[in-house]
Order: sequence, then C-alpha cells, then structure tokens
Amino acid sequence: MKTLNKPVPPGGTIGIIGGGQLGRMLALAASRLGLRTCIYNDTPDAPAFQVTDQSVAAPYDDLAALTGFAESCDAVTFEFENLPAHAIAHLASSVWVAPGAQALAITQDRLSEKTFVETLGLKTAPFFEVSSAQQARDAFAKLNGRGILKTRRFGYDGKGQAKVSSADEAAKAFESFKGAPAILEGFVDFEYEASVVAARGGDGGFAAYDPPENEHENHILRRSTVPSRLGAAKAEEAKAIARRIGEALDYVGVFAVELFVAKDGALLVNEIAPRVHNTGHWTIEACACSQFEQHIRAVAGWPLGDPARHADAVMENIIGAEVDAWESLSKGGALHLYGKKEARLGRKMGHLTRLKPLTKA
Amino acid sequence: MKTLNKPVPPGGTIGIIGGGQLGRMLALAASRLGLRTCIYNDTPDAPAFQVTDQSVAAPYDDLAALTGFAESCDAVTFEFENLPAHAIAHLASSVWVAPGAQALAITQDRLSEKTFVETLGLKTAPFFEVSSAQQARDAFAKLNGRGILKTRRFGYDGKGQAKVSSADEAAKAFESFKGAPAILEGFVDFEYEASVVAARGGDGGFAAYDPPENEHENHILRRSTVPSRLGAAKAEEAKAIARRIGEALDYVGVFAVELFVAKDGALLVNEIAPRVHNTGHWTIEACACSQFEQHIRAVAGWPLGDPARHADAVMENIIGAEVDAWESLSKGGALHLYGKKEARLGRKMGHLTRLKPLTKA
Repeated sequence: MKTLNKPVPPGGTIGIIGGGQLGRMLALAASRLGLRTCIYNDTPDAPAFQVTDQSVAAPYDDLAALTGFAESCDAVTFEFENLPAHAIAHLASSVWVAPGAQALAITQDRLSEKTFVETLGLKTAPFFEVSSAQQARDAFAKLNGRGILKTRRFGYDGKGQAKVSSADEAAKAFESFKGAPAILEGFVDFEYEASVVAARGGDGGFAAYDPPENEHENHILRRSTVPSRLGAAKAEEAKAIARRIGEALDYVGVFAVELFVAKDGALLVNEIAPRVHNTGHWTIEACACSQFEQHIRAVAGWPLGDPARHADAVMENIIGAEVDAWESLSKGGALHLYGKKEARLGRKMGHLTRLKPLTKA
Repeated sequence: MKTLNKPVPPGGTIGIIGGGQLGRMLALAASRLGLRTCIYNDTPDAPAFQVTDQSVAAPYDDLAALTGFAESCDAVTFEFENLPAHAIAHLASSVWVAPGAQALAITQDRLSEKTFVETLGLKTAPFFEVSSAQQARDAFAKLNGRGILKTRRFGYDGKGQAKVSSADEAAKAFESFKGAPAILEGFVDFEYEASVVAARGGDGGFAAYDPPENEHENHILRRSTVPSRLGAAKAEEAKAIARRIGEALDYVGVFAVELFVAKDGALLVNEIAPRVHNTGHWTIEACACSQFEQHIRAVAGWPLGDPARHADAVMENIIGAEVDAWESLSKGGALHLYGKKEARLGRKMGHLTRLKPLTKA
C-alpha cells in the first residue's frame, strides 16, 4: 500500500472519488489551497465536474480507468463510503488513499461498525445480526417491542430501513430486502440527535468541531444547529467518543459520528460516516477551517486547521423543489447550490447557513 | 447593447475575462451559488482554468473567439480593466456585460478618471495632462516641488510610474515612457492609504464594505487591515464617496476606490478600480457575503448580499518566493494560494487572512 512520504505541495492533485455535492465542496476547498483536483464519477454529469478541469467518468469498478486516475493524482480520497473493496485495494496499490481500506470496510457494514463501536466500550442501540426471516423473529423477541431493521450495506437517507413493532413485521421487512443481510436495532427513544464532525491527520493529530444538534424530516437532514443543547461537558464527551473511534480506526481525514442523546443524557453511537458530513456544512462560514478544507489538509498530509467556531450557526438543507425559491433564499444567508440539473423529490439541491453572534465556545 | 431582463438562474454560466487569481476567486464564488463559469484568458495556463470545466484560451482581441465565448455565457464580466474598447463593444452586442463599456472607458485612463472624479466635486491630488516633455516641465512648475508622472493607461503595481522632484526629472521621465500619454500628479503627503470596496446592483442597490487601511511595499499591496484608523464618521464619508462614484458611472458590479487620507483627515481619491480588488480579499472570511460573491450577484442580476463584517481582519499578500513557506503559513490563518506555477519576483502567489474578534462595526 502506498503511503505519503511528504505533504502534497501546492500545484499537486487531489483525486476525489464521487462527484456529488460533497466532492464539489471538497474540490472548492482544495482549490483555495492552491491544490488541483481530479474528480472520478460513474456518470458524466456530476456536479463536481463543473468546478475542475480534470475529471474521469467511468464505472467505480473499472480498474483501467482507476489506474489512469491514480496516475494523475498525488493523493486520493472519497466523498462516499461505498466504493467496492477491490477497487480501493487496486487504487491503494499505486497511490496514497485516505481514509484507508480498513476504515471503509468497517464502516461500510452496519454490523461490523456496531460491533466495532461496542468493542471500544461505547454505547449503541442493542443490535442483532439478521440473515433470515427466522433470525428476524428471534432478534425481535429480544427487543422491548420496537425496532428498526436495516440492510447492512448501502443505506442512506433512510433507504434500506424499516420500523418494525412485531416479529411478523420484522420477518416481512427482512423479506422485502430480498435476501440482503441486515441488522435489527432496538428503537432508541432519544431526546434529540447530535453529531461530531472530526478529523485525524496522518501524524495522529486530532481536531473536532463543536457538535451540532440535528433535525431530520422524512429521514433526510433538515437542519443542524450549533451550539446544541449538549452543554460544554457533554460536548467534550462527544468529541472524546469521536477521538476514540478515529484512533481505533487509525483514520486519516474527516469523519462524522452520529449520536442519539438519550433522555438521561447518555450518548449512543448511531452511525459513523467515513467522510465529510452534511451536519458539518455550517463549518464553511462559522469556523476558521471548514470540514472540507480540513479533510483536504489531512488527505494531503498538511497540518490540520483550526476547528474553532467564531459564530453560532444554523444550516438548513434545500431539498427538491425548495430550490425554486433560490432568489429569496439568496437574501437569507450564505447560499450554497450544488449545480444539480433536476430538482427531484428528496434530492439535496443546496443549503443555507445563517450565522449568529457566538454564544459559547 | 444587450441588457439582462431577468436574473441568471442557478445552472446559468457567468463568463469571466481574465484567468488570474481574481478570475479564479470569482469562479469559486460563482460555483458556490450553483452558477457555472467560463474563463477567457489569452494564455492557456491561467490559474482560473483549474477551477472550471469551461474555458477559452485566445487573444483578447480575437473577435471570433469572443463571439463563441459570448454564446456560451448568460452574462460576462472581467477580472481586469484593460480589455480593448472594441472587444468590449463586440461582446456587449451579443451578451450582457457588466461593468459596462462607459465605466471601463473612464477608469482605463488616469486623465479621464481624475477629471471625472473632479467633476463630482471629490478631492484628488492636483493633476495635469502631459503629452510632451515641455508639458511635463510646465506642469511640474505648478506643483509644490514633488510629483509623480504616470502613464495614462495600463499601469499597475507601480509600473508606468516615476517620482520626480525637478522639471528636468519630469521631462526625462516622460521621455522614458516612449511617447505614451501621461499625467503628472502632485505628490500627496498622506498619513495612510485606505480603500472602499463597494458594489452596485443592476437595480441601483448599493453595498459597501468597511474600508480597510492598506500598506504597500515596493508599490505592491502588503497588508490590508480592517477596521482602519478612519473611525466611524470618516468610514461613512469614504463609503459615500464610493456611492457617489458608483452612481455617476451607473456601475454594475464590485469596484474599489483607493483613498489617500491626508494629515488633516481629508479623503483624496487616488484611483478607481472597476473590479474586485486586492484590498477586499479579507471579505471572504470576515463578511457574510464576500466581494467575489457580491460581484457575481451583481453581474448575474441577483439581489446584493450583506456586506456586514462579523470579525476584524488582517490580510497579507504572499509575494514571490514567500510562497515556499506554504506549510508554516497554512498554520497561521486562512490560506489562499492561486495555483500559479512560477513564483516570480513581485508576483502575487496567494494571501493569508487572520480573523480577530469584532471590535467595531
């Protein structure tokens, strides 16, 4: 596996796999630092293609295309976690790739991710492996009457998930997944959701942003607000959880830890996202160094930037046809639009961040 | 001349003539708003080419290339003021161009610019047209012993300027310009330099940033600091000067007014720059809407953004070989590098902005 012996200098090229809004915002951040970018996407009309002069449109498992891509890059990273493992291994044989294959492998699979979190002594919802309808029934019996069946892989924005409140429902939900391996998680009656967006550098340095509080609608993030209701002590505890996870994964780059905050204040790890995260978009305006710049710095072997927040912030997603109101939205804060052509239902088209004076650090 | 009947919607293309760092930062700002960009530059290795998928490399007076460029754009603007007048007229016949030909014509020529400023009743250094060595001598006799002879066109960063302290020196300096029309300006013994970066929208809206104080070294901007020593009342006076100029030019877009602050506090207009300006780079981090976004908004017919400053700021240019220290610079603030290959003497390679808590609005 290729390692990075010295930082990628200005003028060097960062390869980004995935050309959606996260790839686009990563590319914009890299450009600010004088780095060039090459975007790899499996369709030719990727939003991130618009913001660079180097791009590759090819399937994610096209090894020849990946080889050419790797040769044009000094370091490679991802905007999403679901690249096939053999494609990552292929890339990593010829170019520095961050985050690494191990971190991706663990976080690609909800079962291995939750097992890993449990191994670290961190709290999660109760969870059980489900590979058959009978296992779904048996697992449900161990819960307190409510659960969520989730496919182990490739879920996002609520896709591949079903709430279940009986053994029959659990079995039916499993069958609706058409044989995809799943896990059944106990339903957590949480007070609210929060997240920590954090970074680890190649030198083991760690930097965490203040945790926002997150609100979802129809399984899609609606709003992130910082500071959250956590308070200083719990916010530090949340950052320590992220640090623990980052170190155990020997992670390089930005990652997010989604947390349920229980009524008694306990922090339960819901999910680890091995990438920049929607709940960190407010860092573009409110922090000295945004999550996107931070990720590029880590991947390029640069010193991590300062995650300090100089303002309070509310970030709201602009979803589907909401983008039609772009002109009035542009009067209401820092507007980010992603360059997507079609405003399909549930599609993230942009976001709007409003800053407020800093109330606590 | 083409006008803009409705705002350029997200997905539309802003054409930017000039592919240096200003064009690059304009393109990055446009991308954030979901607009596409096409960069036109007279050499193929322009820094701004790296941050877009649409570019044209052709001479600035290549009318066929300009026609093709205009056809691919919904609005066109500039990163510099020295495009040939006939090229602007050609463009404006087929696409909305902002700022307009009149504003560019006046500000391209120091004599017409200073005459225009005087007509508005604003203060400037005394100035005289110089088209011959004898005129240089005669003009010098009207000054108080010191002056600066400047070519009327194409000067920047101190190029095409000579300090003179005798009639002989004035005549010799004129001859060194090899016949280029010039003006002789009286030397102003100013206390310090300041500038106003401001914007006018197509609807006549006006927005000015707080004026920074500017320090030069070897005729190149070293540092801009905001707030300046002006104080609130003088800062408002400076913004009012910019408003006066913007309205008289019927200007659309961002422009800068460079000011000398005399020992008695008088504000003298030194120069008008019909474009985003180096003394406004700090707005990227310190303001809700940066000068680059503001310019794109104005050119695209969007509502102007909020120029309010949420922090104090110091912006320092990174010049020539100073860029070699990029790794340590990256620890000191918000680093911007421009993607230029060669770090030539006196070349602006990037800038660094440090924010401090807001001390006054």
